[in-house]
Amino acid sequence: MKAILHPARAVTLAFLAAVMVGTVLLMLPAARADGSGAPWIVALFTAVSAVCVTGLVTVDTGTYWSAFGQATIMVLFQLGGFGMMTAATLLGLMVNRSPRLRTRLMTQTESRTLALGDVSSVAKVVLVVTVLVQLVVAVILILRLHLGYGFGWLEAGWSGLFHTVSAFNNAGFSIHADGLSRYASDAMILGPVMLAIFIGGIGFPVLHDLRHRWRDPRHWSLHSKLTLSGTLVLLAGGFLAALVFEWHNPRTIGPFAVADKLLNSLFISVSARTAGFNAIDIGALTHETWALHYLLMFIGGGSAGTAGGVKVGTVAVLFLLVLAEVKGHPDAEAFGRRVGTSAQRQAITVLVLGSVVVAVGTIILLRISEFPTDQIIFEVISAFGTVGLSTGITAQLPVTGQLVLALLMFFGRVGTITLAASLVLSERRMPYRYPEEHPIVG
Amino acid sequence: MKAILHPARAVTLAFLAAVMVGTVLLMLPAARADGSGAPWIVALFTAVSAVCVTGLVTVDTGTYWSAFGQATIMVLFQLGGFGMMTAATLLGLMVNRSPRLRTRLMTQTESRTLALGDVSSVAKVVLVVTVLVQLVVAVILILRLHLGYGFGWLEAGWSGLFHTVSAFNNAGFSIHADGLSRYASDAMILGPVMLAIFIGGIGFPVLHDLRHRWRDPRHWSLHSKLTLSGTLVLLAGGFLAALVFEWHNPRTIGPFAVADKLLNSLFISVSARTAGFNAIDIGALTHETWALHYLLMFIGGGSAGTAGGVKVGTVAVLFLLVLAEVKGHPDAEAFGRRVGTSAQRQAITVLVLGSVVVAVGTIILLRISEFPTDQIIFEVISAFGTVGLSTGITAQLPVTGQLVLALLMFFGRVGTITLAASLVLSERRMPYRYPEEHPIVG
Ligand SMILES: [K+]
Ligand SMILES: [K+]
Repeated sequence: MKAILHPARAVTLAFLAAVMVGTVLLMLPAARADGSGAPWIVALFTAVSAVCVTGLVTVDTGTYWSAFGQATIMVLFQLGGFGMMTAATLLGLMVNRSPRLRTRLMTQTESRTLALGDVSSVAKVVLVVTVLVQLVVAVILILRLHLGYGFGWLEAGWSGLFHTVSAFNNAGFSIHADGLSRYASDAMILGPVMLAIFIGGIGFPVLHDLRHRWRDPRHWSLHSKLTLSGTLVLLAGGFLAALVFEWHNPRTIGPFAVADKLLNSLFISVSARTAGFNAIDIGALTHETWALHYLLMFIGGGSAGTAGGVKVGTVAVLFLLVLAEVKGHPDAEAFGRRVGTSAQRQAITVLVLGSVVVAVGTIILLRISEFPTDQIIFEVISAFGTVGLSTGITAQLPVTGQLVLALLMFFGRVGTITLAASLVLSERRMPYRYPEEHPIVG
Repeated sequence: MKAILHPARAVTLAFLAAVMVGTVLLMLPAARADGSGAPWIVALFTAVSAVCVTGLVTVDTGTYWSAFGQATIMVLFQLGGFGMMTAATLLGLMVNRSPRLRTRLMTQTESRTLALGDVSSVAKVVLVVTVLVQLVVAVILILRLHLGYGFGWLEAGWSGLFHTVSAFNNAGFSIHADGLSRYASDAMILGPVMLAIFIGGIGFPVLHDLRHRWRDPRHWSLHSKLTLSGTLVLLAGGFLAALVFEWHNPRTIGPFAVADKLLNSLFISVSARTAGFNAIDIGALTHETWALHYLLMFIGGGSAGTAGGVKVGTVAVLFLLVLAEVKGHPDAEAFGRRVGTSAQRQAITVLVLGSVVVAVGTIILLRISEFPTDQIIFEVISAFGTVGLSTGITAQLPVTGQLVLALLMFFGRVGTITLAASLVLSERRMPYRYPEEHPIVG
């Protein structure tokens, strides 16, 4: 039995449907704390932000929405994260199922379908991972909040559950207006949160390799090796850069003890790449840390997970290509494998189109608002990378600006993944070739 | 008879030597208007800026330097422009002399030399073009300044010559502190200046095609077709964008008559791409026009000319690659030719390394100065693209910041061109290939 829709289109439609249902639910009077019903733009923006696991908000999640509203938001980002992890894994399988890629690819290009059996088995495994990880992290957080902060079980349970689901799905929503700032020096909170962010954001294909070939890293896929090593480089680089850039900043980690400086620099590095939690005020960071965020937020996390951005694997492919060219090698290679040229072209295309989207979004927002460029760039990349960090201007943007951000979130979340899959599926041979010419470069 | 040095290294050394000689000359008391001798950092920065035809300055060219100093600067950017046009053309010939690229390339990779006959014949033609174009433009400007503004012949002659040489070499130096602002509504000045900028900046290979195959555009090289069409798109796009973004700006073209709005928007578009003249205050432009400048300045002009940036042809190759991928075509193609894959890889490498340099330069300058990010990005791209426009912060940067800018100018001018050539010349076959794998992208 076969499914019937072009998979990239099916994913897009599913996410649009989730946004619409979410918007309607959030406009119900019962969703708002004061029972008055939220305006359409607030409901729409929040629904897009939740479904796209971004976390940008124009209202304070903890006080504006009722318990029902908050639960709706949580369900939306849980579904958004779960749906995307499943969908992206399936899309990845379609183009990457076996080493004999070309054969497989050709068959599937013709049929352009997925067997339903694939769908349900992948979904099952993703569900198990999701539930297991969230269970462990939620228990730790709830215990910590109850024992360490004197929260009642109900309050600790709700806060622990909400932040766990938000962390695993890299959603970045918090029921506190200042995010996790109140726990900035509590490794027992930030630690489990970072773990959930990492596991959710590294992507299903890597988790699969880690689980099934734990003792045999040599046989991990090239994708897993690239994603894991790239992630480590980004985490370490982001940590060191944040530490240096913020060390003396009196408005952020400057006054902290050394251990807390280390903890919070690490948290910045982990969270900036796509989760979007903040334990310190983003608006108070130095300009160079903002610039660091531009890079980390644009790159994002692992493919086929809850993370956004253009993905670590994509950037790794570009890096290998440039490295090969600089060394004069004909092949982009790593870990004893060469990267297929079609993967290289797809990586470049995703990066270029992503950059174009960010550039266009930036110019539009500069045009329709009066905020400085650095805050606009931050907001645009945060939306595109579905990060959700903000220097604090989201709520003050005009409605058109918020709609632009919503489009950026949707394209950043759904577009980059479906684009890559569409590129692979649309590959075809041409009946002729033009003669080659070598234009001057540089 | 053969030359003896790796050409990329020879070009780098020649430019370093010119910078050193220029620095020494500008430190002479005779070079400064008050006869006191300029500090080393002022002399060095000015020499780098002149040799690299950038036009960024920390002192006012017209009042700080004596006539001897100004003449030294003019000779430096004349030599810098002439030298680079010649050198880049030669480097381009080495890798691109005939359609049978691969054969040619292999021979030359082994010898890595240039015949001296090539050098002198190319230099001769470049010299003829340089003298002819500058003669025509200078005569027009001098007449206009004498007849239209009542300048004496000496004053008109010096100003006309200086600005002509500066325009043709895309150097952007002016002997007026406010650039060409006093001529902002004079098409008889801005027109010839734009012509000189265009001819100097389109690059020698295109000029060669235009001259020898004027009536036969079908047989122009792919490089010429890409560069000309890309340049037209950028000029038109930049013109329209600047017109829209500045139309109502009371501090720039807002108060102008419609004809002057059109003229100055065109001038912004022509000049932003690498020349670096300004007829209106860059610091007064809207933030969205600054962002437009980021793009135009980074791209720059044509290869093997006086223009900077990563070059129009480089970006055109990337565009064709992405277009092919989106269409599902195996080849990047245009005008009935396909772009060689090695040219694609070189283009990507130049773009990626250029972006990395800009990002690193930005973060360093953010770290060592207190200026807002948008002005820092502007300054960094302006230096890297050897544009020379500034929002006005150059002189206020600390010495380390000015040294960073000097490095950016040098890398932007010498690095991008020698990098591309080195990439081609370093190509080699490997005795083995690894098995292929297709990592997930996006
Ligand atoms: K997020
Ligand atoms: K210039």
